[in-house]
Amino acid sequence: MKTKIKAQTLKGFRDFLPPEMAVRNYVKNILIETFETFGFLPLETPVLEYASTLTGKNGAEIEKLMYIFKDNGDREVGLRYDLTIPVSKVLAIYQNEIQLPFKRYQIQPVYRAEKPQKGRYREFTQCDIDVFGPPSPINEAELVAIIYSALTKLGFKQFTVRLNSRAILSQILSQSGLEDQKNTVLQSIDKLDKIGQDGVKDELISKGIKPAQIDQIFDYIKSAQPDEYLQQVIDLITQFGVPKEFYSFDPTLVRGLDYYTGTILETSVEEPKVGSIGGGGRYDNLIATLGGPDLPAVGYSFGLDRIVDVIQELNLIPDAIKTKTKILVVNFGAETQKENIDLITKLRQQEIPSIIYPTAEKLGKQIKYAESLNIKYVAFIGSNEAKNNQIMLKNIETTDQKLVDFAELIKILKNN
Amino acid sequence: MKTKIKAQTLKGFRDFLPPEMAVRNYVKNILIETFETFGFLPLETPVLEYASTLTGKNGAEIEKLMYIFKDNGDREVGLRYDLTIPVSKVLAIYQNEIQLPFKRYQIQPVYRAEKPQKGRYREFTQCDIDVFGPPSPINEAELVAIIYSALTKLGFKQFTVRLNSRAILSQILSQSGLEDQKNTVLQSIDKLDKIGQDGVKDELISKGIKPAQIDQIFDYIKSAQPDEYLQQVIDLITQFGVPKEFYSFDPTLVRGLDYYTGTILETSVEEPKVGSIGGGGRYDNLIATLGGPDLPAVGYSFGLDRIVDVIQELNLIPDAIKTKTKILVVNFGAETQKENIDLITKLRQQEIPSIIYPTAEKLGKQIKYAESLNIKYVAFIGSNEAKNNQIMLKNIETTDQKLVDFAELIKILKNN
Repeated sequence: MKTKIKAQTLKGFRDFLPPEMAVRNYVKNILIETFETFGFLPLETPVLEYASTLTGKNGAEIEKLMYIFKDNGDREVGLRYDLTIPVSKVLAIYQNEIQLPFKRYQIQPVYRAEKPQKGRYREFTQCDIDVFGPPSPINEAELVAIIYSALTKLGFKQFTVRLNSRAILSQILSQSGLEDQKNTVLQSIDKLDKIGQDGVKDELISKGIKPAQIDQIFDYIKSAQPDEYLQQVIDLITQFGVPKEFYSFDPTLVRGLDYYTGTILETSVEEPKVGSIGGGGRYDNLIATLGGPDLPAVGYSFGLDRIVDVIQELNLIPDAIKTKTKILVVNFGAETQKENIDLITKLRQQEIPSIIYPTAEKLGKQIKYAESLNIKYVAFIGSNEAKNNQIMLKNIETTDQKLVDFAELIKILKNN
Repeated sequence: MKTKIKAQTLKGFRDFLPPEMAVRNYVKNILIETFETFGFLPLETPVLEYASTLTGKNGAEIEKLMYIFKDNGDREVGLRYDLTIPVSKVLAIYQNEIQLPFKRYQIQPVYRAEKPQKGRYREFTQCDIDVFGPPSPINEAELVAIIYSALTKLGFKQFTVRLNSRAILSQILSQSGLEDQKNTVLQSIDKLDKIGQDGVKDELISKGIKPAQIDQIFDYIKSAQPDEYLQQVIDLITQFGVPKEFYSFDPTLVRGLDYYTGTILETSVEEPKVGSIGGGGRYDNLIATLGGPDLPAVGYSFGLDRIVDVIQELNLIPDAIKTKTKILVVNFGAETQKENIDLITKLRQQEIPSIIYPTAEKLGKQIKYAESLNIKYVAFIGSNEAKNNQIMLKNIETTDQKLVDFAELIKILKNN
């Protein structure tokens, strides 16, 4: 107890108070429920890994964005940067214990030493689903079915899952004689949404690509059609119950990461303008490159923070999730304390989330407290109620008040 | 994609594969459900804090056990060491937004740069509940009711919550003229369980306490009775529905931490010998000392890892939690793929967790896969079944096999 603490949270990091936690848990639980309905199994990995594990696949650019330091044993360690590297490590270490196809979900915070800005944090939560095992268009189609199922349950009315294939893009670049500059060209095309066709053209020219070649690429891309594999994926999506208005083929979709080898997909909403709310793709060579077994893989990552932003902005949050606590039992002090503690104990045995005010205070103060926590009911057994074995129940919203017995109370609380 | 990753997990850290995650989630969900039934609200704080925040209350000894480093902005930061310091910070920053009494639960991993050993990890999960606000014996009694409720739901048949009060211990030491050496004497008495009365005596002698004084302390402690506040707590615990065999007054209970001011409590089981599975107490001065508002507090911390160890050791894990996935739909390839995808899509619309094998393989291979994941049923629509609008259902455990329609299938799966 030497000095006072510095009451300050690091920039880019957030404290989640109960009202925000309620929304985050609501979203997280719907995602988990959906992942499990589709047979994905949970996995968690440590926050710290050997720095060499984290930086394996990345260049120096990305290393700068990692939290890397020496621990007390002089080991170079770093904070989890994404969930793909850790699962690759798991597949490498436990390959004899893991049955294929391996469908895992992982919901954990990741860390980026980036400059914090609106909607960008140094600590944020990724919700990843991946399937490891032989490629099958069923895997991709199920990813889209999961996106549809989860977002619909969350109340989304509009969203689009755009689909493309790196195989198609690669072929176009080969045809244009740009095989060797594939990644740098794709990085520019990836900005089409943000800087438009002219912007992309300028950037490609500055990278030394000839204007005629650029025009040709654009022509090829715009007339591109799904290849056989992607067409199978698209046909299957409908079979998995996703209405056609929620997904489309978009030959201009690129996705940022280098490691994709086939199908790529990204989900966006028109309102609010938050950009992508999730994305993924097929990466058939990455696990082996990372030291794991030679395993094809396809996955998708939901951005928890983005989804929370959207449902807050669009008022999609059901009132009922604001608090789990259904009722406050009033504390009038010694005279009727036993009756009121009996009442709350019986409520809890019926699994009704409930609180008793811990000290005897004026009724108005206790009601105000319940109101501030969005609790809908207060109940009490005063000396009169105690004599008649009754409970006074007050609905805080309507201010209605009536005498009930325990069975009636339970019925009202279970229906509200 | 420069080098291969080092497929190695740091010592003292753990990867949790799906079977372990199933058990951890089962325990975590029962704790959350119980906390919410008692009206506790969720809170989360960042993994990184200013090092000065973390080390505020602690001596140099404990700083050595912290992961502290400089981030890219040259700030001294550290990994969360416990959940008490972060909530104190939250109370200091958000004191105008938080309604008192504030009942919060927080379930997050914490980090200790300790030598890893059996049952001791560098990353482990604490599940803390605390009440901030005016002291009331109701708060302490509810903590014991929560412990009883959670452990009973988890299938514990035997456990003891031992209770004592630092106020009683302080009074005894004052009577013995040891007011000034309070903490050092308590640290020795705390070892009574491990080293016995002779061991404690030797240690106290080495600390310069006179043998006569030591004997007097033991006499006082053994004849100690609950003070008025603790007696109220004990009386209330019964009212909150906890049977008497699960808690007791133990005047020799000390608890390690310096900051407790009143009631202290600790839960232990006789089998297996894991020592304490949780503990807590009242700390009425800590929040102010840490720079927060002047707020009395009482709390309890469940050790998730210890509880998981106990229920694994005692075989208290229900079979049903081993997998959420209820059924595997067999993939026979193109001929009946549409029917089988329709089937699984309808199952998922009924929220039955289910998987379809992503590629066409021999039936035996697909059944073996389902078995390895503890999935109880496989179903398929072959070309004969398709003609008759039927589904072949096989129970993997009993090897029973029968033709059913969709309604029957749902009925069987919902009841199993």
